[in-house]
Amino acid sequence: MQPHLSQIGQKMSQLTGVRAIMKDIIETLQSEPGKWVNLSAGNPLILPEIEAMWRDYTQQLLAGPHFGEVVGRYGASQGYEPLIEAVVDWFNSHYGWGITRRNVLITPGSQSLYFYAANCLGGVDADGMLRKIVLPLSPDYTGYGGVTLNAETLQAYKPTIDIIAPHRFKYRPDFAQMQIDDTTGAVLFSRPCNPTGNVISDAETQQIVDLAAQYNVPVFIDSAYALPFPNLVFTEMTPVFGENVVHCLSLSKVGLPGERVGIAIGDERNIHALECFQANASIHSSRYGQALAAQAISSGELARLSLSVIKPHYQRKAALLTAAFDREMPNDVPWYLHKAEGAIFAWLWLKDLPMTDWDVYRKIKQEHVIVVPGSPFFPGLKEEWAHKQQCLRISLTASEEDLEAGAAAIARVVKKAYV
Amino acid sequence: MQPHLSQIGQKMSQLTGVRAIMKDIIETLQSEPGKWVNLSAGNPLILPEIEAMWRDYTQQLLAGPHFGEVVGRYGASQGYEPLIEAVVDWFNSHYGWGITRRNVLITPGSQSLYFYAANCLGGVDADGMLRKIVLPLSPDYTGYGGVTLNAETLQAYKPTIDIIAPHRFKYRPDFAQMQIDDTTGAVLFSRPCNPTGNVISDAETQQIVDLAAQYNVPVFIDSAYALPFPNLVFTEMTPVFGENVVHCLSLSKVGLPGERVGIAIGDERNIHALECFQANASIHSSRYGQALAAQAISSGELARLSLSVIKPHYQRKAALLTAAFDREMPNDVPWYLHKAEGAIFAWLWLKDLPMTDWDVYRKIKQEHVIVVPGSPFFPGLKEEWAHKQQCLRISLTASEEDLEAGAAAIARVVKKAYV
Repeated sequence: MQPHLSQIGQKMSQLTGVRAIMKDIIETLQSEPGKWVNLSAGNPLILPEIEAMWRDYTQQLLAGPHFGEVVGRYGASQGYEPLIEAVVDWFNSHYGWGITRRNVLITPGSQSLYFYAANCLGGVDADGMLRKIVLPLSPDYTGYGGVTLNAETLQAYKPTIDIIAPHRFKYRPDFAQMQIDDTTGAVLFSRPCNPTGNVISDAETQQIVDLAAQYNVPVFIDSAYALPFPNLVFTEMTPVFGENVVHCLSLSKVGLPGERVGIAIGDERNIHALECFQANASIHSSRYGQALAAQAISSGELARLSLSVIKPHYQRKAALLTAAFDREMPNDVPWYLHKAEGAIFAWLWLKDLPMTDWDVYRKIKQEHVIVVPGSPFFPGLKEEWAHKQQCLRISLTASEEDLEAGAAAIARVVKKAYV
Repeated sequence: MQPHLSQIGQKMSQLTGVRAIMKDIIETLQSEPGKWVNLSAGNPLILPEIEAMWRDYTQQLLAGPHFGEVVGRYGASQGYEPLIEAVVDWFNSHYGWGITRRNVLITPGSQSLYFYAANCLGGVDADGMLRKIVLPLSPDYTGYGGVTLNAETLQAYKPTIDIIAPHRFKYRPDFAQMQIDDTTGAVLFSRPCNPTGNVISDAETQQIVDLAAQYNVPVFIDSAYALPFPNLVFTEMTPVFGENVVHCLSLSKVGLPGERVGIAIGDERNIHALECFQANASIHSSRYGQALAAQAISSGELARLSLSVIKPHYQRKAALLTAAFDREMPNDVPWYLHKAEGAIFAWLWLKDLPMTDWDVYRKIKQEHVIVVPGSPFFPGLKEEWAHKQQCLRISLTASEEDLEAGAAAIARVVKKAYV
């Protein structure tokens, strides 16, 4: 039987963004196992010190008095109380945010959080008006393309491109284009940005927040790569908070992606609406990961290992890949790496590329190297723009050897492509 | 700031059903801790043998080679491969269903599964027609009231009431009322039923499935209390399967409610649509609980302990509470217990009650006993019906002593209520 889907079912049963190409990537990797330099992975590395930390906290959970209660009881929809308290204490003592437990919600990963937010605040309102979810700077996280129940809801804007040095560029929000007003349900962006490694500056972030505040619009700042954990930040940045900001954290880049732990910190009225959505849609997040996270945050170990292990690991990789590109790539081709300000990817722009990103992806595959074409990273950007077909995402999770081999292979393809 | 919610946000930020009264129950219990006979709990008991099993499997996970990969990697949206295989093997070898891994989806609890299903299949379709989610027999699980993004989507039907013995009754589906046709998106019911302990017969279940099949309508059978685990079935029942059936399991009543593991088994086209919804809305379910469940199912221990520990525990409680009611309740009042066919609740009907279920709930509270009024258990039943205000849900999770004290207190209130 072919299911007769609702409008929402039709939208939500489409795989969007990177997921649409994962099938090809997985089949490619399985076709000749071990023969590939894989620079496509979105899955963060398992770093031994980090895995050891989660093992230790699991042992402690088993040895302590709370195991039965954690796995064997339903919990509050808001989240596991000790984790909520750990978050409140951390952000009050380190950032002075003055939050209470009513400002915190735990979700089963931050994707769920954006799903709740996009549909609680975006979509058709009681007056019949479509309120947009605004992505102020495109490209941004590919998964945002999946979270709105109505495809029309998502609205992304082209950035300003600054050439900041030979073969280096940086995206900046283009306030002349960006439309945040009373048709906006919420604003959403990642900082640091997956996939580009961009960090929108403190001042520009504040400018977005202030603009949204004029229209009573919440701003969800996806801080999955930000400080204090995983602290994948290689530039100056301060988390921006405020009454209309929902600061969104994830434990996926500190070694717990499998456990789906997302954390929202914001005004209690926003938090309450999202909590109710969660109660109705999924009751509550699973609790084992929450119990571990409560310990890792309150002990300070999570922030400590983020700074001493996770951040230097990826920062070293970013520097190595940048050097490899500078060494391998042809100087007379207009290639640009995005400034490496954070996260776990490099983002390569091939200006005036005489073919599409998919063509380049296929040619690079012929060199036994897999990257990810850039076009799926512009969710919500409806207009045509050549730049969308000129970028590649390169994962920093690969080994140093593979990053260097990958850069050399990409350089070989690029040299031929521009001839 | 007061959030400006979408229509969906307005619906989903309402707490429905039992959640709407949990605040009163929690405040009551906290008002004089230790002074209450609590017969309101929906949270299953932590049975020592069951907790020990999950501890053992956690130890094994820590000792084995897969810990890092389970918690430290993103997984497939469909679920953790070893769990999917364990489910396929179990249902093929014990039930002969002939399923493959493409027939299985793991969700973060079964509430999420019903949320995906209700909105993939129910709601407005491409032709602008509202397709209903039909609950064929009301009362049913209170949480179904929360899963539809549009309040109009849910449609429940009054049952037939059979008086089967003095002070005993049983609900049966009323096929004369029930409307399943091409306006139906999906059918959904729990079997055994939370809150009533009813088990719709094999023949009647097949009749619903056949009726739905004529219109290509999937039937989601919520088997959270069914065999093979938790096996909270005190009567004859066989799981009904078929091309248009989605058989839905949960690990919440086998000691893992905190970990949110739901399992759907059905036609691969339905499963695929739900999987995509999940990929977009939450990526995948958390994996620690899945990894434990894979071991517990494939070893056979989960089914074994369900039969030897979980089932007899609650069956004994049901018998004890039934005997207590027969002993304590006035014979000349038209009270009826629903036939105890499964699950973890008793369901009391006070026919011709000269007050509401809420009044009785409050009077029982004055006796320091907490039950749950029955009216939140009729989600989707829009018509007026006196029966909706004549029922109470009594949890079998209480101790034997508390069940007996509770029955005596309820009897005192009932005697006075009918004067």
